[in-house]
Amino acid sequence: MPQNAPSQAPELQVSEWLNTQTPLSLAGLRGRVVVMEAFQMLCPGCVQGGLPQLARVQEHFPESEVAVLGLHAVFEHHEAQGSRAALAAFLHEFRYSFPTAIDCQPPEGAGRALPLTMAAYAMQGTPTLVLIDRQSRLRRQIFGHVADMRLGAEIMALIQER
Amino acid sequence: MPQNAPSQAPELQVSEWLNTQTPLSLAGLRGRVVVMEAFQMLCPGCVQGGLPQLARVQEHFPESEVAVLGLHAVFEHHEAQGSRAALAAFLHEFRYSFPTAIDCQPPEGAGRALPLTMAAYAMQGTPTLVLIDRQSRLRRQIFGHVADMRLGAEIMALIQER
Amino acid sequence: MPQNAPSQAPELQVSEWLNTQTPLSLAGLRGRVVVMEAFQMLCPGCVQGGLPQLARVQEHFPESEVAVLGLHAVFEHHEAQGSRAALAAFLHEFRYSFPTAIDCQPPEGAGRALPLTMAAYAMQGTPTLVLIDRQSRLRRQIFGHVADMRLGAEIMALIQER
Amino acid sequence: MPQNAPSQAPELQVSEWLNTQTPLSLAGLRGRVVVMEAFQMLCPGCVQGGLPQLARVQEHFPESEVAVLGLHAVFEHHEAQGSRAALAAFLHEFRYSFPTAIDCQPPEGAGRALPLTMAAYAMQGTPTLVLIDRQSRLRRQIFGHVADMRLGAEIMALIQER
Repeated sequence: MPQNAPSQAPELQVSEWLNTQTPLSLAGLRGRVVVMEAFQMLCPGCVQGGLPQLARVQEHFPESEVAVLGLHAVFEHHEAQGSRAALAAFLHEFRYSFPTAIDCQPPEGAGRALPLTMAAYAMQGTPTLVLIDRQSRLRRQIFGHVADMRLGAEIMALIQER
Repeated sequence: MPQNAPSQAPELQVSEWLNTQTPLSLAGLRGRVVVMEAFQMLCPGCVQGGLPQLARVQEHFPESEVAVLGLHAVFEHHEAQGSRAALAAFLHEFRYSFPTAIDCQPPEGAGRALPLTMAAYAMQGTPTLVLIDRQSRLRRQIFGHVADMRLGAEIMALIQER
Repeated sequence: MPQNAPSQAPELQVSEWLNTQTPLSLAGLRGRVVVMEAFQMLCPGCVQGGLPQLARVQEHFPESEVAVLGLHAVFEHHEAQGSRAALAAFLHEFRYSFPTAIDCQPPEGAGRALPLTMAAYAMQGTPTLVLIDRQSRLRRQIFGHVADMRLGAEIMALIQER
Repeated sequence: MPQNAPSQAPELQVSEWLNTQTPLSLAGLRGRVVVMEAFQMLCPGCVQGGLPQLARVQEHFPESEVAVLGLHAVFEHHEAQGSRAALAAFLHEFRYSFPTAIDCQPPEGAGRALPLTMAAYAMQGTPTLVLIDRQSRLRRQIFGHVADMRLGAEIMALIQER
């Protein structure tokens, strides 16, 4: 499961937060395991697979041990899914309550560049699931599907590390 | 299945069409059975149930007998799902190819009014499935879930009417 | 859907009936549509797909129009699934209430022969679904999976024939 | 998750083994985590839920860390599912390859007694999932459904104990 020597997870670069009253950061979550899903609200694999699974993570692990985060990483259809209002409506309708960050868009003129957090993690697309340990190190990054049983096991392995 | 004496189905009131080069109308579809789903792109029951089922209708019945239509009937979260661009991105990403109408919004100042086709059919929400016979009569209107087996049977019953 | 000129469905050859007080026959069911599933209680495709679907047929169509039958057609593992007691326990535990015939085993010395009804219909294995019209003609025979929507449509097409 | 002070798991009382060349025992499996499912081949909850899940446990965890066992604990319909041949046919058809024990039937005249291992664990029915740690202590016993994510986490927690 662990891949090479784990390095620090790049800090999140967020333009706005939803479902939380105060902005979050990996630095501030140090000491807990972080399970973060990069998604787009119009990505079928996210809507049908990744996000329901993230909600199950939230349901099965105590918040004191595992911080569950969404990362809205829009890299296409910006006009359709790029607004805060669109994301807020989506989270409301699908009843997702985990804190959700809007990934920073690249500066104008950067061409078809990825949003900044997505780029820092070198993600290939959405959904991408990221597991970060209690010391803020990046331990796993999964593009696409992962079975619930395996994910539950990997999260527990990180919880057990002290 | 048939409900009382069926009356003419109200004509569609459409501001724009997607997935078709020429605008459609119930009048123009006379002679075929019409299966139409009123939906919203941010409605979970539509995304997870109604629209995949509508795609199965399209797959199982010949286009020459059954016209399959989507009706984007936005009555909430207009800023998030009210634009043509948002709907186009949604249909593209989920690979829905059936002709889809954007239901006419009510005039300004009408308060929280429903879009016009939705109001004409007195729909209670989304998803709502509508079955219209070869003579353009409204034969069935279902708010929420209907089993594939029952829906297949009801469509076939209308196909057999000559 | 109809295949060539339909011929009379071969009469059932049954050693015992379960879930019915009086033995049934295709002759006696004339006038109704018959939906029959040939299955084996230890066939995964039957247990996970065919039989739950047959129960949905029973649920969605009125008994006065459609007779739903199981046909236990054992052609392997006779010692495990060949007894009336085993089948009765299976039907009881899975709560299947449709009348179920035990297909006649071939005479001793016939080698690896199929049970007699299965052989008369030239079935290739289980599950096999058979649709018989109101005039006792064989109209459809499906080995393996068929979608609920298509099956509902095909049954309705036969119901409508008078 | 842990329940009180864990005690030694009662040793298995087995009349026959399938899917293994040599008989197994909890004593012999000491040092590994044991995941055992008590089931009956005609129990719908076992066939549709418990056994497919047990196969997923086998798939996701290495055999060197986790021993996966079936326990055929027949307490009803003995004539239908009580024979070795019936169980062998079932395991073959459903392609279950984990070692499977046949729980010892109680002596004649014991009335409607449970099989011996099932009784020693005070199981309430099937399916029942049992988790045993590396020191052969009974750590969890679940009658009915448990989510894959939770089960994966609980197994990993036991794997991590040294």
